[in-house]
Amino acid sequence: MGKDKKIKPQLAGGFRDYSPEEAEARGKMLDAIRRTFELFGFVLIETPAIEREETLTGGDPNFSKQIFRIAERNEKDPLALRYDLTVPLARFVAQNQNKLPWPFRRYQIGSVWRAEQPQAGRYREFLQCDSDIVGTDSLVADAEIIALIYETLTALKIPRFVIRIGNRRVLNGISECAGFRKEDFPAVLRAIDKMDKQGWGAVESGLSKLEGNPKFIKEALEISGKTLKNLFLSLNEFLEGSREATDGIKDLEIVANAISAMGIPPKFYKVDLSVARGLGYYTGIVFETILEDLPSIGSVCGGGRYDGLVSRFSPMRAPAVGMSIGIDRLYKACEELGISQEISQQQVLVLNFEPKCELYCAEILGDIRRAGIRAQIYLGQEKTLKGQFSYALKNNFGIVVIAGSDEKKKGVMQVRNLADRAQFEIAKGEVARRIAKLPFSKNGL
Amino acid sequence: MGKDKKIKPQLAGGFRDYSPEEAEARGKMLDAIRRTFELFGFVLIETPAIEREETLTGGDPNFSKQIFRIAERNEKDPLALRYDLTVPLARFVAQNQNKLPWPFRRYQIGSVWRAEQPQAGRYREFLQCDSDIVGTDSLVADAEIIALIYETLTALKIPRFVIRIGNRRVLNGISECAGFRKEDFPAVLRAIDKMDKQGWGAVESGLSKLEGNPKFIKEALEISGKTLKNLFLSLNEFLEGSREATDGIKDLEIVANAISAMGIPPKFYKVDLSVARGLGYYTGIVFETILEDLPSIGSVCGGGRYDGLVSRFSPMRAPAVGMSIGIDRLYKACEELGISQEISQQQVLVLNFEPKCELYCAEILGDIRRAGIRAQIYLGQEKTLKGQFSYALKNNFGIVVIAGSDEKKKGVMQVRNLADRAQFEIAKGEVARRIAKLPFSKNGL
Repeated sequence: MGKDKKIKPQLAGGFRDYSPEEAEARGKMLDAIRRTFELFGFVLIETPAIEREETLTGGDPNFSKQIFRIAERNEKDPLALRYDLTVPLARFVAQNQNKLPWPFRRYQIGSVWRAEQPQAGRYREFLQCDSDIVGTDSLVADAEIIALIYETLTALKIPRFVIRIGNRRVLNGISECAGFRKEDFPAVLRAIDKMDKQGWGAVESGLSKLEGNPKFIKEALEISGKTLKNLFLSLNEFLEGSREATDGIKDLEIVANAISAMGIPPKFYKVDLSVARGLGYYTGIVFETILEDLPSIGSVCGGGRYDGLVSRFSPMRAPAVGMSIGIDRLYKACEELGISQEISQQQVLVLNFEPKCELYCAEILGDIRRAGIRAQIYLGQEKTLKGQFSYALKNNFGIVVIAGSDEKKKGVMQVRNLADRAQFEIAKGEVARRIAKLPFSKNGL
Repeated sequence: MGKDKKIKPQLAGGFRDYSPEEAEARGKMLDAIRRTFELFGFVLIETPAIEREETLTGGDPNFSKQIFRIAERNEKDPLALRYDLTVPLARFVAQNQNKLPWPFRRYQIGSVWRAEQPQAGRYREFLQCDSDIVGTDSLVADAEIIALIYETLTALKIPRFVIRIGNRRVLNGISECAGFRKEDFPAVLRAIDKMDKQGWGAVESGLSKLEGNPKFIKEALEISGKTLKNLFLSLNEFLEGSREATDGIKDLEIVANAISAMGIPPKFYKVDLSVARGLGYYTGIVFETILEDLPSIGSVCGGGRYDGLVSRFSPMRAPAVGMSIGIDRLYKACEELGISQEISQQQVLVLNFEPKCELYCAEILGDIRRAGIRAQIYLGQEKTLKGQFSYALKNNFGIVVIAGSDEKKKGVMQVRNLADRAQFEIAKGEVARRIAKLPFSKNGL
């Protein structure tokens, strides 16, 4: 303590703090997300931040460049920090398969870490909110997840967004019809994934190194219809040569009908075949969500069907579909769009300007809190009533309680509503009852 | 996918998952803790899991053996995982000192990591719930933190506990009066800290290597009083030779009076000078909390005053007092004591046994959820009404909705209350209104 050599108080590069204002707003968002996930019957699990590296990478050496590894500690297995919540879910399901309800609907909210180069607005630690249904082929599950995205963003008061829904099976069918080789399909999908952000030029350049007909792909992606039904009919006609495509279109139709049956308004979703999603493990329906008032920030919530992930760990069949909300990006978007979450309860400050009345003030403090009202006692350096009053104003307290020796003698306190400066004398025994009538109306108590 | 070589689905040693039942119960505890912290005017902050190693260790090489370090990534600074929330708080305060209300009352709930050898019931990743008041010398702040422990454990429905309150200043005074050398005081305190768990024998053996009078220490620790006032009088008399001791006793008296004024019942706290707390950074009042029905698990909540920690980073003066709840230990205690938190809302299962009625069922599902009622649709392998019914019973659903082609034709559904098996027919348009009258009374809807 008090040593001369100070350690510089700074964050590690690529990491951030949340100030009280930011943490409270984000906390309110998380509460709304949690409530919506639970409304849909998802149950919470928690898995550790640290997993065996092999669990995370699946033995794939390409992954290791993105993860934070734990420094060697003579472990049998190297350890690392999770980079998403989906792989730990797959490990959890394989490990506990006999104990879980099936299908298993779980949600998880937790930090993940990616060892990318720090850049503006991108952090190396961020919070993900995931919902997944594991153990069903039913396409109603895909619709449920999409409906959950709609309900969650609506609960967060986001007014204008579109969930873009695609299907990797249709994209594979298109690639097939366009004469690309099966082993090139992943590369074709990666190229198509650039359509939304970078336009056809980027897709074309991605396809140019491969053998096949880019023009056919362009035409397929340009097909539209006045209604979803028309769209599906046109697609079926155009892609009738591919069983994979027609099956995939049927899947999209089932999902769209189920979403509609669940009462999701049509303007909040659309079928968009150019959605491919980067992650390799998706196998069918995929989706992402664009804020119409802020498209530049990209997808705030995406996901899809991945029928093979659990098989990394177990021979069990565990077809799954899920989504992930990037809460930090969404928080930033809400900030930019001026969408604020519910304001927290205002607070009472019990002033503390006469040392011999401090215990009397502590009694009042206890009474107020027992009425369920947020309160604190002034414990700072200001010794005068005036100074403490300024503090209350500066820090947005709603009500100030003044109890000096006059009040103590009479067994009362002065209560001042800072909204209108109205001041009342209240008997000490009355404080809980009277002050419980808050939130602090402009007409006093 | 489906490769033959499977990765074994297992946790890293010393880490654990939380199943849905465990995660929900723990989540309810966290909600209660959060509400109580906020009632006391604490505001949330979030800091990252990863900090600069120097921040965490303060350059003290002894600390490094307990922390998980991040594997070298060509960083300027080595990085590591936080081992508590107090050191990151000190870094945050030093870094943001001009932006914070002062005194600064913050809470934080987050995982911390310690690279200790795994052992039964001790994990290497665990959740801490911390509340601290930074920037005040007022002993009312110490009392506030102790009152907060009382209110938090009461909110968690823990019936019998004692907060044991000591003061390092008094212990230093006792050591002085007993003739120990000043440089040995930390070692004396470490020995005294063993009193509660291991008894006087362990204390004596710890003191035997040092120069001083153990008998005096024993006598001091044995001083008791019928009332706190008597205790303080006797202590003052016995320790009048040490200014540090008499000042420390006065501090204890101020804290005890303020706790009492806040309305904390006397049976929930006591002064116990043998409380020293292991961590080196404490400087004054210290406390820990023992569950009377389960003393063997040790302290579930402890803390104290630490006036020098921020000075590791800044010349600013930031006297502080705080506490930390080990939620995992407390969760285990509640389990052992049979204390269960509020039960979550029961759930509706919409059966799904006729493919051609699936969209009708999806409509009903949407209606139920829009009424704010937790619901899901059956998406598993069972195709028969009977099989799906068994699933509902096994998985503790409260209500089952049956809508086959007969119901669809009439625009109704059957709703069965699984508590009493009463069954009602409800018109589709009525479902939200009728079912909103849950929670599922035994008399049906």
